[in-house]
Amino acid sequence: MPETPVSPEAVAPRRGRGRRPADEVRADVLRTVGGILLQEGLADLTFERIARESGVSKATLYKWWPSVGVLALDGYFHAVEDALAFPDTGDIRADLTTQLHHFIELMTTTPAGRLLSELIGQSQIDQDLATEYRRLYSSARRQLAAARLRAAQDAGQIRPNVDVQVIVDQLWGAVYNRLLVPDEPVTAAFGDALIGNLLDGVASS
Amino acid sequence: MPETPVSPEAVAPRRGRGRRPADEVRADVLRTVGGILLQEGLADLTFERIARESGVSKATLYKWWPSVGVLALDGYFHAVEDALAFPDTGDIRADLTTQLHHFIELMTTTPAGRLLSELIGQSQIDQDLATEYRRLYSSARRQLAAARLRAAQDAGQIRPNVDVQVIVDQLWGAVYNRLLVPDEPVTAAFGDALIGNLLDGVASS
Repeated sequence: MPETPVSPEAVAPRRGRGRRPADEVRADVLRTVGGILLQEGLADLTFERIARESGVSKATLYKWWPSVGVLALDGYFHAVEDALAFPDTGDIRADLTTQLHHFIELMTTTPAGRLLSELIGQSQIDQDLATEYRRLYSSARRQLAAARLRAAQDAGQIRPNVDVQVIVDQLWGAVYNRLLVPDEPVTAAFGDALIGNLLDGVASS
Repeated sequence: MPETPVSPEAVAPRRGRGRRPADEVRADVLRTVGGILLQEGLADLTFERIARESGVSKATLYKWWPSVGVLALDGYFHAVEDALAFPDTGDIRADLTTQLHHFIELMTTTPAGRLLSELIGQSQIDQDLATEYRRLYSSARRQLAAARLRAAQDAGQIRPNVDVQVIVDQLWGAVYNRLLVPDEPVTAAFGDALIGNLLDGVASS
């Protein structure tokens, strides 16, 4: 990822003239963090490095993000927002297939899978991280998935009495299960099987 | 849990007369460990305590189990084997409901849920534990579930072209997903919804 040029205004923010808008500075930081995470993972992510590469002072980083873990979650969420968007072509089966393939590709061909596994793992013994993980990542991802699934209910493609949050666990949750305990492989075919089983049912008719 | 009486033969195993069979000693140890885990969880589990409560020498424990984590996994697997058995009444829907209710009850009303979450969490950064977790727990549990699901395929209740390992992720894996990232609650009703969604399908017919 190319380094964002150092902006003196951002390094030493001043009230008044010349200061870049905070939203723009935040977006720079999140882009820097997301780039590091998707290329390298969490290991070498420090406030020092992020300050250097984003051109934003450590004081500003600390003010906005209380820990590097929280900043990582925020950066990761924004970094994958486009790659993990939920398309709506009007065909829920096709759209779930597209999205789940993207998700599985991201999890298995970038450091994202390991990053999320480690964050979920660490959050089992770190209550603050667990809270931030849900606040900054998982609950927001759940809401995006649920919105697409509810649109499919409105379109008459998913039964109206189904709790869409349960579907989230049976698609993406099932993938996380294999990422965290890799007894079985995470592949595009696995994604297809998840969708087929769930939409069509596994009971013999 | 009542303490197993100390057996001098087990404390100082000798070749020849008087020694208890190794299987019996192992079973005593696993019973002791399982009792501690289901009542208290992992926090106070040490080789010292297990030796004292099971009446088996620490040397013997070290010989059979290289670490307390491995012994915990072995003890836990045996402790829950009966509670998490897969009944076969011939009705796969009823049997999955029975088993999943037992599983959810165990996960939410005993230290088992926290224990497994912590073991899965720790195994994200501890490759030896990850290997042992799969070897001593998860892959064996998967096989038991798959055997019951294959019997349902043989009985014509589940479509023959379904990969039963995917079903495992969409039932038990979905529960683990909520245990590890508790955005949504783990309840008996959640278990019922998992089974209903998967057997009947969520697509509008």
